[in-house]
Amino acid sequence: MKKIIITAGGTSEKIDNVRKITNTSSGKLGMTIANKFLSILPDIEIYYICSNDSLRPNDERVKIIEIEGTKELEEQIRLLLKREHIDGFIHSMAVSDYTTDYVTTISRIKNSIANYTDIDDAFNNIEPIGGTKISSSEKDLVIVLKPTPKIISIIKEVSPSTYLVGFKLLDKVPKEELIDVAKKLRDKNKCDLVVANDLDSIRNGEHVGYIIDRNNNISEAHGKEKIADKIVEIMIKKGWLKWIMKELKKYLLI
Amino acid sequence: MKKIIITAGGTSEKIDNVRKITNTSSGKLGMTIANKFLSILPDIEIYYICSNDSLRPNDERVKIIEIEGTKELEEQIRLLLKREHIDGFIHSMAVSDYTTDYVTTISRIKNSIANYTDIDDAFNNIEPIGGTKISSSEKDLVIVLKPTPKIISIIKEVSPSTYLVGFKLLDKVPKEELIDVAKKLRDKNKCDLVVANDLDSIRNGEHVGYIIDRNNNISEAHGKEKIADKIVEIMIKKGWLKWIMKELKKYLLI
Repeated sequence: MKKIIITAGGTSEKIDNVRKITNTSSGKLGMTIANKFLSILPDIEIYYICSNDSLRPNDERVKIIEIEGTKELEEQIRLLLKREHIDGFIHSMAVSDYTTDYVTTISRIKNSIANYTDIDDAFNNIEPIGGTKISSSEKDLVIVLKPTPKIISIIKEVSPSTYLVGFKLLDKVPKEELIDVAKKLRDKNKCDLVVANDLDSIRNGEHVGYIIDRNNNISEAHGKEKIADKIVEIMIKKGWLKWIMKELKKYLLI
Repeated sequence: MKKIIITAGGTSEKIDNVRKITNTSSGKLGMTIANKFLSILPDIEIYYICSNDSLRPNDERVKIIEIEGTKELEEQIRLLLKREHIDGFIHSMAVSDYTTDYVTTISRIKNSIANYTDIDDAFNNIEPIGGTKISSSEKDLVIVLKPTPKIISIIKEVSPSTYLVGFKLLDKVPKEELIDVAKKLRDKNKCDLVVANDLDSIRNGEHVGYIIDRNNNISEAHGKEKIADKIVEIMIKKGWLKWIMKELKKYLLI
């Protein structure tokens, strides 16, 4: 049996108890990939980690794990990768790069600057707005965000043998730049495969994906169905073919 | 025939092309109120303005209008109130009080402070981060928000004869304070009815609502069904009873 993790949808980071920063993502690509695996491999188990509004596959071989923020996502991934042997990891979720550090106002920043001679001291001592729901009466609001841990870098760190598929989404960049940035993401995080796509092509309904392997072979696919096909095909051919042959032999009693 | 507008769900304000600030709200209360009206008044038309992920009624007498940001919400409301006679307006949507002014970084703010002797000049000339998708490589991110127009104040301004129901949601405040703040919202925006509720009671599954009219009569209701019942009951008894009697007479040929 193969066990894979698919992440899908978008994370959300709380600002207060009613406001949050969300990453727009329907989860459609993640769901399409999951359904592809389910239709090809009878003996598969999928952990599908997603946001509560994400599209998702409906199959008894799929375990849905809902998460909100990046921190929760990281916890779930570490837990699964440590607890079980995971063969593949398709990380299609739009993960927030930043999370709320604190919320304040322009006038509070100015006050702090007036109170400290050193500018760094001033910025380290800005008075935040407290409370669980921020009032609507402020003249302005300043949300200071700090980087979240890079989730994708954790996967090979914890589980080096897991086949990892990463995704890079940019907006309106030339093809060469898109592919170049995706390769960097691949190398940095030891991805076996990386999918580069551009928001612009998603918006106009075409959705071009470039699927790049470790040897810089690039496959171009149009539309979520074809992108999913290509990913699953490469994973099975390159990564799991031996295993499938073995399984086949068992079935055929060779 | 009665025509009403119900707003439901939560608005979202763009930070860039993939990130947005959203207000958490399922739209369940708005939907419950809509269904209540639909079951009681056969001859009703509802404009249901909501976010794309909001719960909604399913009935041919309901026109769904999907919006994202506060600006779009305002445009739709002005359009409807000017074009048609609207008898009632139930404003249950969680509307963002702030929208993105610009995005920058702490170091850009510090630079601006270093470049200007006057602190206000410095803050008026902060270099924003451009582009349609903000890079993930910044050490921090600062989102500066400015207030949105108060949607609820527009309704009676444009259409004084519309029966207006406003909502006030606070988090963990004493009952007296909650009611006091709700009354202020009512008076400021000429609401005929205001519903005060506390996030805390929603979280623990109880959802207590205080429904306050112009004469400070307070009805307490528990759960969304009962809150919806109460609102519809008061609107019909206090606001529309004459009209209903007239309609009844027509039916009964008195």
